[in-house]
Order: sequence, then structure tokens, then C-alpha cells
Amino acid sequence: MPVTDTKPAVVSKQAEVVINGVATQVVCSAFTNQILVVVTQYGKMGTLVSVTPSLVSSDLGKPSLTTKVLLGQDEPLVHVCAKNLVTFVSEESKNKPVLLSMALKDKSVDCIKTLKDVIRSCQVW
Amino acid sequence: MPVTDTKPAVVSKQAEVVINGVATQVVCSAFTNQILVVVTQYGKMGTLVSVTPSLVSSDLGKPSLTTKVLLGQDEPLVHVCAKNLVTFVSEESKNKPVLLSMALKDKSVDCIKTLKDVIRSCQVW
Repeated sequence: MPVTDTKPAVVSKQAEVVINGVATQVVCSAFTNQILVVVTQYGKMGTLVSVTPSLVSSDLGKPSLTTKVLLGQDEPLVHVCAKNLVTFVSEESKNKPVLLSMALKDKSVDCIKTLKDVIRSCQVW
Repeated sequence: MPVTDTKPAVVSKQAEVVINGVATQVVCSAFTNQILVVVTQYGKMGTLVSVTPSLVSSDLGKPSLTTKVLLGQDEPLVHVCAKNLVTFVSEESKNKPVLLSMALKDKSVDCIKTLKDVIRSCQVW
């Protein structure tokens, strides 16, 4: 029996682009409590990172984000890439936590910058 | 620049149904190394569980599945529900691991059984 609600509970958008010659797919899904962002250049799910705004935040600044690797390789570059990629998603979605799945061949600053634009093109928050 | 490949790297299917009066949404995505299954009755992502076929498996039987809660409440019923819901997904996808996000109001056997049918209707593996 189909739901007759006007709006589906979960909204997803996806995009496929080539960044520096590498085929890249981005899928963003908005849940009420979290944003799911999948970025893959291998067709794999890759490293799963939770990016959570800290509970203690200054009135003056933006809340700082905590990154935690849930699945896959836990190395410093993963945390750096994750924060760079989805900090703006959390900020723009009223500080929702972001679950990021990331399988990148190219972790250059240039690629990350372009990826952010692609993620923005899949805005569901 | 759009990718000109014939097949997108990640294929997703989703369904919305009402089970025992509860609006339910299912999203399944196939990655090369993993299947992502999202089941929500709250619009939330809910508990995140990795369901992995064990490396040691008998030639005579099916590989046993290991469940691990990555995010959210880690209680026995979560593991039972997760195994019941997606064991068949792993088996049918040549023993790929499944990442399951589950936010259920109704954890009855009846509901789980119906949910499996909905997941099957979103077959991407």
C-alpha cells in the first residue's frame, strides 16, 4: 500500500562527474536526524566516517566537528578530507551530523574543492 | 563533465509502503564491495549495523554472518532484526557485506517479514 503523504521521508539526489579524469559519483540523502553523503571514485562504499558537531559550542563561533571512522582505514588524512568535504553540509543543515562514505582515488586539494561543489549540487538539506 | 559510461557505478532503488499502519521507507544501494540497506519508520537513519559474512565458512553450509553495531543502540534485538532482515541480501549478492541502517517502530516478526519483501522489491544486487 503506497504512502499518500505529500513528501517522502527520505530525499536523495545524486550526481556523476569526472574530476581530473576520474569518474566520481556522489549521493546525498537527508534523514531527519542526519545527512548521508556517499562519495566514490571506485564504485565502493569506502571509509565510513561520522562527522558530528560538538555539543559544547561557543555562542561566538561555529560548533567544532568531531570525526570518527566507523568502518575502514583510520588515518589522519581521512579525518582531514572528511572535515573538508562535509563541514559545510553540517553547517547548512542546522548542525546535523553527517555520515560520510568516502572512496577517493584522488585526495588532492583541487579534487576535494571540486567534490564540495558536486556535493552542493546534490543539496538535500 | 558528465560520465559517458553506460552504467552508473552505484545503483539505488527505493520504496515507500505502509506496514501495520506505519509509513515505512526502504532504500537499497549496490556498491561493488557492499550493499547499503536503509529501513526507516521515523525518517531517521537509526541504528547502523554492519552485517558481514564470516571468512571461515564450511563448504557444506552457508557462511555465518557477524553483526556489529557501528552507530546507535547496541542491544540483542538489533542484531536479531539485522540478521533476519538482510541475511538473504548478503547470500543473494554472492556474500557481500551489508551495511544496514534501521529505525523501526515495529519490530514484530510480522513486520520484519513484510520488510524483507519490501527490501526484495528494491533489489539492486
